[in-house]
Amino acid sequence: LGSHSTETAVPIPTLERLSTYLRYLLELEGDGVETVRSSELEEHTGISAAQFRKDLSYFGEFGKPGIGYYVSDLRRRIATILKLDSEQLVLLVGAGNLGSALVAYPGWEQYRLRIAAVFDNNVAKIGRRLWDLEIFDIRKMPELNRYLESRMGIIAVPAPAAQSAADMLIRSGVRAILNFAPATIRAAPDVAVRTVSFIQEMAVLSYCLWTGTPECGRP
Amino acid sequence: LGSHSTETAVPIPTLERLSTYLRYLLELEGDGVETVRSSELEEHTGISAAQFRKDLSYFGEFGKPGIGYYVSDLRRRIATILKLDSEQLVLLVGAGNLGSALVAYPGWEQYRLRIAAVFDNNVAKIGRRLWDLEIFDIRKMPELNRYLESRMGIIAVPAPAAQSAADMLIRSGVRAILNFAPATIRAAPDVAVRTVSFIQEMAVLSYCLWTGTPECGRP
Repeated sequence: LGSHSTETAVPIPTLERLSTYLRYLLELEGDGVETVRSSELEEHTGISAAQFRKDLSYFGEFGKPGIGYYVSDLRRRIATILKLDSEQLVLLVGAGNLGSALVAYPGWEQYRLRIAAVFDNNVAKIGRRLWDLEIFDIRKMPELNRYLESRMGIIAVPAPAAQSAADMLIRSGVRAILNFAPATIRAAPDVAVRTVSFIQEMAVLSYCLWTGTPECGRP
Repeated sequence: LGSHSTETAVPIPTLERLSTYLRYLLELEGDGVETVRSSELEEHTGISAAQFRKDLSYFGEFGKPGIGYYVSDLRRRIATILKLDSEQLVLLVGAGNLGSALVAYPGWEQYRLRIAAVFDNNVAKIGRRLWDLEIFDIRKMPELNRYLESRMGIIAVPAPAAQSAADMLIRSGVRAILNFAPATIRAAPDVAVRTVSFIQEMAVLSYCLWTGTPECGRP
């Protein structure tokens, strides 16, 4: 598994920002831009140049005085930091509308992530296809993942089914889960779980809208 | 618009947690549970009972000694705090896979939110339906929102189209935007923008997975 747990602990907000820098750098690279200054990064991402330099300082020296940063080089180095430098397979649970949108998402490849298999517990869906992927019976997951060896999973099922989806992912060897269900997932401490809850984001926006809270924006 | 900007500023993380409490309370209410203790809330949401009490303290007294909290009452009060106590219309830009999943999401009503109109710039989609909603030409938005008077919008378009979708929402009167595109949205300070970036969450998970960072979980 190539554990790097001897590294200095990097704060989660730094990781989130690294991921934002990566997104921007991929964009620049796609546009054929060769160098970027921290001031441009600030302008584009809303993250201050000082914060950017501080975040990078966890990992060494990157910039060149008078030039800024070489886009491809920095992109590669951040991808390496985030362990996105070689392909990782992802298991998806839930072949519904959200699952369909996730499989169709065009950005996976840039992050070297690939949804390798889709699972559902609905017999009407099992054996059918979600885009180019076969939908498997969720009970087949441990067996199937014995050769896929995926360590990452996504839960895109309704809230009542979320915990059992998580349990099955974990039983199959997954140790990092992105949960889209509006439900709290219980997992052992060696499993990283992050929840994306857009309805909760909407609730925060509602408050911000009606109270005029200025710091609500998180662009 | 009923501005409440004279209230003490509530930190965003508190708002995010309030939204988590609301989700849990809706769940309990749906199950017919009448009272809840902060220890149960801690057990279920992973947010400590002390944090819960502190978050509520911004808004007054809620609990009853020896009983805990009346579920329906607390649910109503938190919904009121978050301004989710009367119906709000939401404009959706993007009638693709993600847009489809968002319209089909069954949880809107509980939050008194309703997607009132869907917009796209693809002529092949305009005039067709996304579930029970007609897909409108994005250029019709300002006109249509003159009578809908929606203040909230969702961006579910590819990254290159995200800024123009935001501009159109803002021009139409929207002042709170949830952005699903992996792009930074520029908006005036009176517009609240929050971005949901699942691919960035995956990047954080990737780092956590390979470094064994324990504090990665955010359940």
